[in-house]
Amino acid sequence: MIILGIDPGIAIIGYGIIEVVGSSIKLLEYGCITTSSKSPVPKRLSFIMKEMSSIIEEFKPDEMAIEELFFNKNAKTVINVAQARGVEILAGIEAGLPIYEYTPLQIKQAIVGYGRAEKIQVQETIKTILRLSEIPKPDDAADAIAVAICHSFSRKFKELYEMR
Amino acid sequence: MIILGIDPGIAIIGYGIIEVVGSSIKLLEYGCITTSSKSPVPKRLSFIMKEMSSIIEEFKPDEMAIEELFFNKNAKTVINVAQARGVEILAGIEAGLPIYEYTPLQIKQAIVGYGRAEKIQVQETIKTILRLSEIPKPDDAADAIAVAICHSFSRKFKELYEMR
Repeated sequence: MIILGIDPGIAIIGYGIIEVVGSSIKLLEYGCITTSSKSPVPKRLSFIMKEMSSIIEEFKPDEMAIEELFFNKNAKTVINVAQARGVEILAGIEAGLPIYEYTPLQIKQAIVGYGRAEKIQVQETIKTILRLSEIPKPDDAADAIAVAICHSFSRKFKELYEMR
Repeated sequence: MIILGIDPGIAIIGYGIIEVVGSSIKLLEYGCITTSSKSPVPKRLSFIMKEMSSIIEEFKPDEMAIEELFFNKNAKTVINVAQARGVEILAGIEAGLPIYEYTPLQIKQAIVGYGRAEKIQVQETIKTILRLSEIPKPDDAADAIAVAICHSFSRKFKELYEMR
């Protein structure tokens, strides 16, 4: 089972790809797609679609998990990020992937076991789970890996539950 | 010159297609794409992409004009509408169309000549410009026609300006 995790954005989109075999999780790849604020929005959306599609084509994930978006005070930013997130979801669905959404609270809860955990606690736990020597950088990529791991745990819970 | 006007949305997306020949504007088609709130968001985005692409394929517009999005009090709605608007823009750009954005104020200003005009004034003016016997329904379709007409006027201003 290969899971693509996405930390949504328009200027910087984190992605993390993990492979789950039994109770073992392997990090296959991670990184960021970036677009310049100097480019017009349509061009940025088109670039995101292209990059997302090429990542999906290369790693052939079975499922996609994406962080939910929340309101902040900067209206312009929220609208632009949401427009990009729509395209990110579309890239997954056009490739036939089931899409799952998780809130930051659900992600922290799943990984650290505590919904109000600090970002660094989540990152340290990811490092341990994946047996890495360093925390994956930048934060956007680490967040994307976190949502992918959150989904792998949530799948397991679901499977356990369904087996009862 | 064929212009596709879009009133962005996720539950209901208005579209209007006009043909501009000299100073004459002909309404080629208008209507709405609708998605059910009972469907998951990824399915709705995918449906919007498909419908938008098929409208573009059928009418082969040269340019696309879309209304800008504004913040309202319902955060969830704004995020969902913005996600859909991202996909609507993507459908245009993937078909090679230049995309133009107009604010409601710019649209009213262009059509009625007064930025604070009432919706009904805009609709009556559209009816007159297009020599229709009735106001196009529903409002979302009329709004989409309005943004297309606004763009055709704005192009003319631009052309006039450039000729000086």
